[in-house]
Amino acid sequence: MTKNPRTPVTVLGLGLMGEALAGAFLREGHPATVWNRTAAKADRLAGRGATRAGSARDAVAAAPLVLVCLTGYDAVHEVLGPLGDVLDGRVVVNLTSGTSAEARDTAAWVERQGGTYLDGAIMAIPDAIGTPDAAVLYSGPRAAFDLHERALGSLGGTATYLGADHGLSALYDVGVLSLMWNILNGFLQGAALLGAAGVEATAFAPVARNGIETVAGWLAGYARQIDDGVHPAADSTLDTHLAAMEHLVQESESHGVDAGLPRFIRALAAEAVAAGRGGEGYTALIDRFRKPSDHA
Amino acid sequence: MTKNPRTPVTVLGLGLMGEALAGAFLREGHPATVWNRTAAKADRLAGRGATRAGSARDAVAAAPLVLVCLTGYDAVHEVLGPLGDVLDGRVVVNLTSGTSAEARDTAAWVERQGGTYLDGAIMAIPDAIGTPDAAVLYSGPRAAFDLHERALGSLGGTATYLGADHGLSALYDVGVLSLMWNILNGFLQGAALLGAAGVEATAFAPVARNGIETVAGWLAGYARQIDDGVHPAADSTLDTHLAAMEHLVQESESHGVDAGLPRFIRALAAEAVAAGRGGEGYTALIDRFRKPSDHA
Ligand SMILES: NC(=O)c1ccc[n+]([C@@H]2O[C@H](COP(=O)([O-])OP(=O)(O)OC[C@H]3O[C@@H](n4cnc5c(N)ncnc54)[C@H](OP(=O)(O)O)[C@@H]3O)[C@@H](O)[C@H]2O)c1
Ligand SMILES: NC(=O)c1ccc[n+]([C@@H]2O[C@H](COP(=O)([O-])OP(=O)(O)OC[C@H]3O[C@@H](n4cnc5c(N)ncnc54)[C@H](OP(=O)(O)O)[C@@H]3O)[C@@H](O)[C@H]2O)c1
Repeated sequence: MTKNPRTPVTVLGLGLMGEALAGAFLREGHPATVWNRTAAKADRLAGRGATRAGSARDAVAAAPLVLVCLTGYDAVHEVLGPLGDVLDGRVVVNLTSGTSAEARDTAAWVERQGGTYLDGAIMAIPDAIGTPDAAVLYSGPRAAFDLHERALGSLGGTATYLGADHGLSALYDVGVLSLMWNILNGFLQGAALLGAAGVEATAFAPVARNGIETVAGWLAGYARQIDDGVHPAADSTLDTHLAAMEHLVQESESHGVDAGLPRFIRALAAEAVAAGRGGEGYTALIDRFRKPSDHA
Repeated sequence: MTKNPRTPVTVLGLGLMGEALAGAFLREGHPATVWNRTAAKADRLAGRGATRAGSARDAVAAAPLVLVCLTGYDAVHEVLGPLGDVLDGRVVVNLTSGTSAEARDTAAWVERQGGTYLDGAIMAIPDAIGTPDAAVLYSGPRAAFDLHERALGSLGGTATYLGADHGLSALYDVGVLSLMWNILNGFLQGAALLGAAGVEATAFAPVARNGIETVAGWLAGYARQIDDGVHPAADSTLDTHLAAMEHLVQESESHGVDAGLPRFIRALAAEAVAAGRGGEGYTALIDRFRKPSDHA
């Protein structure tokens, strides 16, 4: 027995992400049992010291901490469904992507089997697992997170506990993914526009990155405005934004690139301006996002 | 005469931004002549050592380097239009926001009067002018930029020269603004969604910021894919993105927040997947942005 025994861990699902998770546990000295539907995907890990389980049932029975990382919740239910009797007393950490409702339903089911459930969301690509760049979000019972925080820390950079509602990781996840798609779409729009004027995307990228980092610095202040429900235009009014959005639409149209996203952006601001809110700052648009609209 | 005489500078337009520009020149020791339609806006600057011109004509005549910062190009033409005869031999740097076509037209007109024209775009709020956070982009004749690079450096952080095409600053400007609006919309969408689950925007902000900075780090590599015209899915395929976009739409609908932006995002990817490109990476969508579409 070593002085600091590491918690034994089981990983179900050895796709791109599951293999990276199991590898990170091994690297930190955790005894790891692994299982994958297609057994050959356990080969590399077995070579690195993982124990290969003959079935998902054997894998779950092998450790108090069970990580699950499959394509989606259908697969999770297919794999865990028949194993209710071996979940008793274990902590299941599900890092499979899904909705908050799926996370809450699965939590209720695991708890009925006597297990404890943490839901999680991985904000990283497999290569980043185990490095400072990996961020993983967790939600569910605080005590279970505290118990396994050190083991989960093997996955990398930051393990953030969000709260007891099992649905929170999934919600933060789509919130951040939504930001990601927005940034990528904005970058593609800019690259298309500049490309039409003969500028390469690699020339646009550093200027774009600079701009993104500036905006990232504003979010804390903007968040305060949203929570306080007041939207002063400390920097720029919606009227000013709308005038500049007009330029974006015009440039896109006159350079023959798609103007769909520019028009979408303009419509949000134009609606708020038409409603008399042109003198407020950008966060006034939160009201537009808070309720379903006919326009979209 | 000092050993390093600073170039005398004129600033036309002393709104929020113009006043900040003139203030930065004064701080760096440039003799500055200022003019504003509403004369009282020159008071503070006069108190700090600026020379107040009685007319725009006198202001232009006072310095070899003339900065212009007005509401828009209509104002620029109203102010400069009657002054063609005093532009000869001067460098006009127009930091008024507008389109690339407006910049090119104005450049041609200034050059017909014997002047030299640089267009510029300020990627900063007035408070950041003169600090390392200010980024200003310039386009037009390289020689004019080189001649005045030191003086323009007074405005802060980075003075970036983009190229000889006068329209480039305006294009980069809307490209970066578009990214800014996309980020802010993504943040508002996330804040609305999390808000519906009882989470404050201030709790979402640090996680969002983290995510944004991760994505910012990808742009250089994505730009290379765009320029090379190959879109390998090193991290995640469009199929995988589309599945997660489905979660975003579902979460938005089930939490009763607006799903317009999520549906817009999903439609872009769904179209590419339907066209057989689901195995490629996100940058494959560039083709969708490059030409006008009926869907938007
Ligand atoms: N990759 C990323 O960058 C990333 C980032 C964040 C989150 N995630 C999330 O992590 C999860 C896994 O992603 P991945 O990249 O590892 O995907 P992947 O490479 O496609 O692996 C999917 C895994 O699920 C298993 N599986 C699917 N259906 C199954 C079933 N019915 N029964 C048993 N096993 C089944 C597969 O087993 P077989 O090998 O037998 O097919 C495989 O192990 C997803 O929810 C994804 O959204 C991934
Ligand atoms: N503020 C920012 O954060 C920011 C950031 C980047 C770029 N910009 C750009 O900088 C430019 C100026 O913005 P700002 O914030 O300084 O705006 P502002 O505070 O509204 O000032 C507008 C200026 O334009 C003058 N003006 C307008 N119409 C005129 C006319 N017909 N004849 C003569 N003067 C006229 C105004 O003179 P009066 O005082 O007599 O009305 C005032 O000096 C805009 O193009 C803006 O897009 C601003």
